[in-house]
Amino acid sequence: MRICFFGDSFVNGTGDPECLGWAGRICAAACQQGYDITYYNLGVRRQTSTELKNRWLAEASCRLSSEFDSRLVFSFGVNDTTQEDSKTRVNFSTSIENLSHILNSAKQIFPVLMIGPPPTPDRQQNQRIAHLSAEYADVCQKIDIAYLDTFTQLQSSTIWFKEAAANDGYHPSAGGYTEFANIVQNWSSWLSWL
Amino acid sequence: MRICFFGDSFVNGTGDPECLGWAGRICAAACQQGYDITYYNLGVRRQTSTELKNRWLAEASCRLSSEFDSRLVFSFGVNDTTQEDSKTRVNFSTSIENLSHILNSAKQIFPVLMIGPPPTPDRQQNQRIAHLSAEYADVCQKIDIAYLDTFTQLQSSTIWFKEAAANDGYHPSAGGYTEFANIVQNWSSWLSWL
Repeated sequence: MRICFFGDSFVNGTGDPECLGWAGRICAAACQQGYDITYYNLGVRRQTSTELKNRWLAEASCRLSSEFDSRLVFSFGVNDTTQEDSKTRVNFSTSIENLSHILNSAKQIFPVLMIGPPPTPDRQQNQRIAHLSAEYADVCQKIDIAYLDTFTQLQSSTIWFKEAAANDGYHPSAGGYTEFANIVQNWSSWLSWL
Repeated sequence: MRICFFGDSFVNGTGDPECLGWAGRICAAACQQGYDITYYNLGVRRQTSTELKNRWLAEASCRLSSEFDSRLVFSFGVNDTTQEDSKTRVNFSTSIENLSHILNSAKQIFPVLMIGPPPTPDRQQNQRIAHLSAEYADVCQKIDIAYLDTFTQLQSSTIWFKEAAANDGYHPSAGGYTEFANIVQNWSSWLSWL
């Protein structure tokens, strides 16, 4: 199975000294259980849903093909909610349109999973992420794509916030990414892919 | 430092149950020594130098920027030498032109390293890879880009060939990628980047 993981710095695993992030951890765990997975990590730091909308198809097209068992995982949203010049980098309705555009196009080609944005140490930004994550869940339900709410589960993770604070204020280290990976690994939609 | 690694399945780390490959191993080792590295693995299975020539700039442009300390590492060549329909997938002179085109463009933007193709268990293909690797070394010397000959060093690696044979005939497992990583980690040009 060949899987492209598209998203932001959290998909990239920025801050993880083991260079795996959550995506690398779930694929390594599956490989070590004997599954044959080709792992393409296409997370890019600072990218919003608008930037992802513009690049995912070109990057997926040279890595995946209907000849192989090809899959797509998306995870983004935090950067859309970042404030710059007293407005968010992407406004709420555009974030929703971008999600809808990406997933509707993607599901026509390959099986797709959507993993929601994690929390940050910024309380006000977290309110915006919580709002976006809830709406993302609704959109995914309507278009029949499995959605994982990581925000709610990671809100109660001490290590996620502790490592982010000790790191650059946003990205955890190996422990936080392990927590994130555990949430995905316990998700029935991920398990059903294996 | 943000590093994009462009290449083929050997860059991707195909066959490595730890999902790191040699590129992930050298970055993880550097991070664990305290270096701040953002690791972008852009190896794609089956890609030749022609396919790389067509995609590297678009994929690098959304990940790197002159605002950050940005670097490029390339490693390809094996797929060019694969025979299909009694000719190689890319002919020798086109392979050389592609290398020259990629590296001349890349060095104008960011610091660049070139890592040569490794050996395979196929003796005839290895003759072609050895020839290509020697010519790649010459091209790199002429345009002043550091080139690492992995072919000669991995030829004497028992684990590289043993794991490739036990795997899919081409790609090693964790031990072979660790050998490859050790060769890069002992290379003065990589060490001078850290």
